[in-house]
Amino acid sequence: MFMDSNNKSISSLSEKSLIERIIKLSESKNSTLKDEYFNLIGDDCSVILFEDKYLITTSDMLIQKHHFPNEMSFYNMGFKAVTANVSDLASMGAKTLGILISIGLYKDLKLNEFDEIFKGILAGCDFYNIPLLGGDTNDADEIIITGTAIGYTDKKPMMKYGFNPGDLICLTGKVGFAALGFELLKREEYANNQSKQNNDIIDYSINKALNPIAKLKEGQILLDLNVKVATDITDGLGSELASLLESDKKYYLSNNQIDENSYSKGIRIYEEKLDISSDYLELSDKFGLDKLQMQLNIGEDFEILFIIPSKIKEFLTKQLDFKVIGEIIDKNTLEIVLSNGDLENLSTNGYDHFKC
Amino acid sequence: MFMDSNNKSISSLSEKSLIERIIKLSESKNSTLKDEYFNLIGDDCSVILFEDKYLITTSDMLIQKHHFPNEMSFYNMGFKAVTANVSDLASMGAKTLGILISIGLYKDLKLNEFDEIFKGILAGCDFYNIPLLGGDTNDADEIIITGTAIGYTDKKPMMKYGFNPGDLICLTGKVGFAALGFELLKREEYANNQSKQNNDIIDYSINKALNPIAKLKEGQILLDLNVKVATDITDGLGSELASLLESDKKYYLSNNQIDENSYSKGIRIYEEKLDISSDYLELSDKFGLDKLQMQLNIGEDFEILFIIPSKIKEFLTKQLDFKVIGEIIDKNTLEIVLSNGDLENLSTNGYDHFKC
Repeated sequence: MFMDSNNKSISSLSEKSLIERIIKLSESKNSTLKDEYFNLIGDDCSVILFEDKYLITTSDMLIQKHHFPNEMSFYNMGFKAVTANVSDLASMGAKTLGILISIGLYKDLKLNEFDEIFKGILAGCDFYNIPLLGGDTNDADEIIITGTAIGYTDKKPMMKYGFNPGDLICLTGKVGFAALGFELLKREEYANNQSKQNNDIIDYSINKALNPIAKLKEGQILLDLNVKVATDITDGLGSELASLLESDKKYYLSNNQIDENSYSKGIRIYEEKLDISSDYLELSDKFGLDKLQMQLNIGEDFEILFIIPSKIKEFLTKQLDFKVIGEIIDKNTLEIVLSNGDLENLSTNGYDHFKC
Repeated sequence: MFMDSNNKSISSLSEKSLIERIIKLSESKNSTLKDEYFNLIGDDCSVILFEDKYLITTSDMLIQKHHFPNEMSFYNMGFKAVTANVSDLASMGAKTLGILISIGLYKDLKLNEFDEIFKGILAGCDFYNIPLLGGDTNDADEIIITGTAIGYTDKKPMMKYGFNPGDLICLTGKVGFAALGFELLKREEYANNQSKQNNDIIDYSINKALNPIAKLKEGQILLDLNVKVATDITDGLGSELASLLESDKKYYLSNNQIDENSYSKGIRIYEEKLDISSDYLELSDKFGLDKLQMQLNIGEDFEILFIIPSKIKEFLTKQLDFKVIGEIIDKNTLEIVLSNGDLENLSTNGYDHFKC
């Protein structure tokens, strides 16, 4: 079934389905069967046991028309390319070793624009203390920045699997602000001179959209404190939660610890714990935006989503700023308790590049 | 001077000049000043001292219109993306740890074409025994494959610097065949059914162009045998030789071991040692192609170019198939002795993506 050479185009499948297709193709290959690679394709980063350390690597390709809003400066594009990759290291709790940047640029890009992109990249490298190791330059039809970040951990990194009913679902910060920022930028009155708005929530949201920051230190603290499960919010809270459930199920299935139908863990989150201010509600109402949709289905917040046993909550609170937004339940579902008390199933669709 | 925001486009500079621009921008940055990164931007790969090993990383972005001739199959595109990255590891003498592939694809690419690209990538991974660790997928206007290969060495890897007058310049194989292959593919009678030509040199050249192989084992053997200087031929023999001279000069300047004007090493190669068969000459004559230009200025051969003290030549000959093509001289020049005895300065221009 899988190998049939049908004539459908790749846009008929989601990005996730395409990745599953690659995983299936790779299953028969010798080069994917080594023990030391315990996390081949699927988590935020890959993990290689190397000497007595865990080598953590990740690669993200950012493409102008998808990842860089028109209002984003060249400097911010460069900085964001570093952030997107560092955020994956953060989600594993990794320390930084270096980053490679391969970049495609159109020929009539101005030299000062070229400089701005690299000033942004280098400022990002400085900010996260991750040296620019090298890369490649090419001419292309649009701006394309592929970063590959390399880091390491001294102990097993945080993965997407390994939680139990009763565990708490936590966030290092708020979600939905980048989404609001993107919406504001679509509107003429906010597209320019953003800092002159003198409105905290507007400035904050637009800044979250244009100059996101990865939670690198927070990730490292979490791993230090023996947190086992984490991911970063790039594709939207909804799809990241679904991805945690899937990874956990896959892990226990592949270790033959359960059969397909007996997987019974689920996630319940609470709308009111997503902690949105009245300012946010006011703005989203003004523009007819769906607050919950922005929080659940639009990504780019680069916060860390992590899961902890409830007994360490109090201890962790003293070390790190975070918010509990839900818990693991013993029913295989993904649901949200709305502010009005209603229970709803959560859509698992995050932002999807290939869907028409 | 460097920071002026002039309005020139990047196509006014060579790729090399753009990279020098990045290096200058990075010089003031904290994150580039760490001792353990002894090779920031410039060699084939970057090198990080990690535990008691040398971690070797490299990233290459391949873009359809530049790197994949029309006649190249989707399978071959995938395989070549792996080869291009592995070749950089080979040039350092590295053992493989893994590869990440980030890929941009147009939306109407067929699923069977998508499968073919990844079958090629996975076949490449198997061939070089380098596991596919992960990556990213995106939709883009053309096919773009960025690979990042990760490897390691137990001792200092082969670099582009550190040779002396009298040392021999060597090649693991012949150069100019990929170039001939590309030329043949432009001609209708060779563009299809290549294997039916039943002509060794035609098949060989076309195969070199469409399905190049990195000299991974050869690179590892060279490092094992304590060879210190190597690079791979991707941009053309002429520019790779120039790059060796430049790196060597830069290395000795940065270590304050010489002043700018006292650098007096040069390279002399010999046309007749480039070892071209009469078949090759016949074909290139038939199509009015400049044999030497193809050998010196067109890359993609993926052979390893290395430099050894003359005293180890005999020993090395027993372990590895290679050819001496010239030597290091004590005059700062880059020259070729033609078959007719004339001495000519070598053009340093390799293939250059951004030049109009």
